[in-house]
Amino acid sequence: MNIINYKEVLEDIYKHISSEENKGSVATYIPELAKINPDNFGVCFLSVENEEYGIGDWQTKFSIQSISKVISLGLAYKIFGDKIWKRVGVEPSGTPFNSLVQLESDNGIPRNPFINGGAMVICDMLVSHFENPKEDFLTYVQEICDSTEIQYSKKVAKSEASVGYRNKALCNFIKSFGNIENEPREVLDFYFHMCSIEMSCQELSKTFMFLAKNDFKTSKGESVLSRGRTKRVNAIMQTCGFYDESGEFSFKVGLPGKSGVGGGIVAVYPGKYCITVWSPKLNKKGNSYRGMEFLETFTTETELSIF
Amino acid sequence: MNIINYKEVLEDIYKHISSEENKGSVATYIPELAKINPDNFGVCFLSVENEEYGIGDWQTKFSIQSISKVISLGLAYKIFGDKIWKRVGVEPSGTPFNSLVQLESDNGIPRNPFINGGAMVICDMLVSHFENPKEDFLTYVQEICDSTEIQYSKKVAKSEASVGYRNKALCNFIKSFGNIENEPREVLDFYFHMCSIEMSCQELSKTFMFLAKNDFKTSKGESVLSRGRTKRVNAIMQTCGFYDESGEFSFKVGLPGKSGVGGGIVAVYPGKYCITVWSPKLNKKGNSYRGMEFLETFTTETELSIF
Amino acid sequence: MNIINYKEVLEDIYKHISSEENKGSVATYIPELAKINPDNFGVCFLSVENEEYGIGDWQTKFSIQSISKVISLGLAYKIFGDKIWKRVGVEPSGTPFNSLVQLESDNGIPRNPFINGGAMVICDMLVSHFENPKEDFLTYVQEICDSTEIQYSKKVAKSEASVGYRNKALCNFIKSFGNIENEPREVLDFYFHMCSIEMSCQELSKTFMFLAKNDFKTSKGESVLSRGRTKRVNAIMQTCGFYDESGEFSFKVGLPGKSGVGGGIVAVYPGKYCITVWSPKLNKKGNSYRGMEFLETFTTETELSIF
Amino acid sequence: MNIINYKEVLEDIYKHISSEENKGSVATYIPELAKINPDNFGVCFLSVENEEYGIGDWQTKFSIQSISKVISLGLAYKIFGDKIWKRVGVEPSGTPFNSLVQLESDNGIPRNPFINGGAMVICDMLVSHFENPKEDFLTYVQEICDSTEIQYSKKVAKSEASVGYRNKALCNFIKSFGNIENEPREVLDFYFHMCSIEMSCQELSKTFMFLAKNDFKTSKGESVLSRGRTKRVNAIMQTCGFYDESGEFSFKVGLPGKSGVGGGIVAVYPGKYCITVWSPKLNKKGNSYRGMEFLETFTTETELSIF
Repeated sequence: MNIINYKEVLEDIYKHISSEENKGSVATYIPELAKINPDNFGVCFLSVENEEYGIGDWQTKFSIQSISKVISLGLAYKIFGDKIWKRVGVEPSGTPFNSLVQLESDNGIPRNPFINGGAMVICDMLVSHFENPKEDFLTYVQEICDSTEIQYSKKVAKSEASVGYRNKALCNFIKSFGNIENEPREVLDFYFHMCSIEMSCQELSKTFMFLAKNDFKTSKGESVLSRGRTKRVNAIMQTCGFYDESGEFSFKVGLPGKSGVGGGIVAVYPGKYCITVWSPKLNKKGNSYRGMEFLETFTTETELSIF
Repeated sequence: MNIINYKEVLEDIYKHISSEENKGSVATYIPELAKINPDNFGVCFLSVENEEYGIGDWQTKFSIQSISKVISLGLAYKIFGDKIWKRVGVEPSGTPFNSLVQLESDNGIPRNPFINGGAMVICDMLVSHFENPKEDFLTYVQEICDSTEIQYSKKVAKSEASVGYRNKALCNFIKSFGNIENEPREVLDFYFHMCSIEMSCQELSKTFMFLAKNDFKTSKGESVLSRGRTKRVNAIMQTCGFYDESGEFSFKVGLPGKSGVGGGIVAVYPGKYCITVWSPKLNKKGNSYRGMEFLETFTTETELSIF
Repeated sequence: MNIINYKEVLEDIYKHISSEENKGSVATYIPELAKINPDNFGVCFLSVENEEYGIGDWQTKFSIQSISKVISLGLAYKIFGDKIWKRVGVEPSGTPFNSLVQLESDNGIPRNPFINGGAMVICDMLVSHFENPKEDFLTYVQEICDSTEIQYSKKVAKSEASVGYRNKALCNFIKSFGNIENEPREVLDFYFHMCSIEMSCQELSKTFMFLAKNDFKTSKGESVLSRGRTKRVNAIMQTCGFYDESGEFSFKVGLPGKSGVGGGIVAVYPGKYCITVWSPKLNKKGNSYRGMEFLETFTTETELSIF
Repeated sequence: MNIINYKEVLEDIYKHISSEENKGSVATYIPELAKINPDNFGVCFLSVENEEYGIGDWQTKFSIQSISKVISLGLAYKIFGDKIWKRVGVEPSGTPFNSLVQLESDNGIPRNPFINGGAMVICDMLVSHFENPKEDFLTYVQEICDSTEIQYSKKVAKSEASVGYRNKALCNFIKSFGNIENEPREVLDFYFHMCSIEMSCQELSKTFMFLAKNDFKTSKGESVLSRGRTKRVNAIMQTCGFYDESGEFSFKVGLPGKSGVGGGIVAVYPGKYCITVWSPKLNKKGNSYRGMEFLETFTTETELSIF
């Protein structure tokens, strides 16, 4: 790897993208999310050697939504080990269109932990395991991020619950196959809260360090996942992190990553760095328009893709 | 990266796997392929610095089948550039079950160049471009492998054509959407020949060097793909190289790769090495049983995955 | 039509089928239904001229389940007229497997009012219309049957609600497309009650007379559906009354009809008669084994099919 | 049944529909069919007592296309009896969209003999049976119609073959499951010829008399199908005769029938009459616009539906 002036590269790309039209549109299906300022734009790069560069709104909190699914997967993997793969797969799901059909032909085993159904199965495991799932999960997130300022947005959780008929359908459908242990109501309550967590780019890059850094330890000195397991979680992000645009992201950006409808994207270069970009306007596939642009340019210019 | 004694590691794994039961079964749907000795087992490791280690039947030729789809993609990408992505996608396909449905909902655009339909569209491009597609393609393969001893197996091509009703169905179906320019008969003749190419592990590792080595040049000093493009082909292998076991391979092995029903698997560590394993018995998903075992153990023991 | 001694024909067939093995198995997915005596077997034939023949357990009440969907459709059609066809189709649904996919591609419009999703949309209309949907619907059933002894089984309704995750999934899924106006909870409560109605063969044949007899009037002298509308409801029963065995029933029996998992089947010969058969053991497609046998033999022997 | 002045009713409806806009568009996917005059409009009513009424272009020949599938089914049923139901089903197919998926999940058994795949399986049986399938089939058609003037249109057959990639796909796909015995090329040649037969409304009504009249005999005094079998063929027409508009036709017209993309529709009232309407402009589902209008009005005004 050549010596790269990351700061300069990042700032150049940020400036360039800021100067161009901000395309796409903010997610509106969750009423509370629709209120966001569409021009927020933040980036935080954090290397495994703790080099940190932040630009723009990198310290503003936003709704991390589906990005939370990586954190809950990490926790479930830590607690239950490879048993989790009996209840959720590791294969990409093809089109969103297929999700319900696939559940049918796969007997209620979601294809991977990053589609909604798979994340619900992971949530169900945590609901079964913890005394107070919501409190205990938040404590865990605060620990790996080393910050007590991370909270759920009750407003967003409530807003999503009020319109989440498709997620209710999904959870009841999986329950009908016996792959949800608890009552759908409880699992969904945990799921909607999990998705409502608010974090900044800075906090997300710090949190995802458990997938980038060998021998990562939390503030309390605890390990999260072994090297073999982080490899596996990264591999799933690579193939399944962007719904039916996973191939496209892999193709263009060449890094494992995860996006959320709040406009955040986290990408991980194993052994090297985490980078988080946030910009609320989404492209047609539901991923941050500027986030995709930024990361594609970044890995192309630095030639720092895993491929 | 630690200094690893590859030779020793490779031999240890080979010995260990040879001592265990050889599970799965040889592909029988192509009559000619069913005649192979199921106990063939070869490995060839080749680093970008030209370190080469071969074990077992590493110099015996076998039918490369779908592995050829990477070579034809490379050639089409070289000739036509990014125009190819208008006629074929870069997304994983989910289950095989979905392939025809997806073609329907995607208006005849196959999801990626490694499922049969996608490879046919690539073949169609080459048939339109070349005067003598079969001869010209073979010349190209010989060039990037630097060997004139690579040939089609007319027997295998004929054998496959005689039973290839599903492939005929697929090609006519895509033609009905207008995404095949030539007559299906011609495209299929080229496709069946392409799949019938016979190569050894040694030749395959050498051939795939165009995806592992920066600034790779053929024996005639010609470039194949730019760095940006090899990154993209590797990314597609990562997400789509193993049909509906792509996630599993990514999860367990953590490298871009491509398998064929002849029992071969090639995996690429970009910037570092190519490795080819051949063992004809296939698991239920149609990938070499010992090939998968070997590669999973290899990347786990050497800790040399891209993730 | 030749002069047929119905009584004799019916008794002969009943005797013959009673003497043969009672194949299939009782529906067990609703715990309360599993308690039924599998050897119950009743038949009631009722002509438009009021000739009535009953055999076996023809006056024993059983859970009518999906047969109720014809009654609710009749009521909704009476109240709302052809507006109902904007929210539910009249086409057969192919395999059960397709139901969720079809809802997706049809934007939440169920294919017909006899698959569960379609019946829920009809229920939703009635829930919106009535002050006390459950009471008002029961009153209506009592009126067209001219009997105050028809009741819901609260046990069965509760039993079904306790395990009805797939129905909950379905209702929430349709709601997510905006084709359910009320809260899924309310609609499902009405739906589960409607299915839990208990009636005898005698009562069912009497109730379905509104589809067999021109100018049918309730005990209060009220019309239900015009001739044009009964024709339409009969046509839908013909093509959609037996889930993915509708073609088979049409093929073998040649009459419009509707079955329920409680083991009941009602068939209608427009302008001539209604016949109800009840036997709880179901074939693989979920229709009464003896019911199908009985009706196939009956229409074959009497040559009284509509075709 | 009241005494109806059919002639008057038919002429009134014809006049009324002729005076209204002729909506829809002529099928253009077969180049030769696109040349037809869109304003042709013919009707032929034929009762089992041999009352015949013809209006407009009732004696002009047109391409019967899919209507031929009923004739070939009749012949195969006569020759092979109920064995045919092992290779083709009797259930409606839902949406056209599902056809290929269903073949996959049904292991190559088409859902019914009126979708293209099912008709090909029937053709395959006849190709296996006859010395000269095309000649022998034509002779049979001429016999049941009692006319030697019925011929294939070689132009239309060739025109369809030249663009029939989807049908080629379908036939090869079924062959891949082993449910086609002969080479797809031969089966398709017969299939395209069968569809190219040209007949007038008068000839079609006469031909379909074998499904309307008890004890129908050909000009040579031969029986075609027993009463039990005509009942079955009529039942399949009722549920499957109009692709994904079968329910709609059943709902509106209330008679078994079959349409073709040439603009013809034949409907049968078992025991009473046959009626054929021809008008080349098709609605969105591929059925004659004026044909549907005519038949809906006719069965509504005469109250002569089977329901």
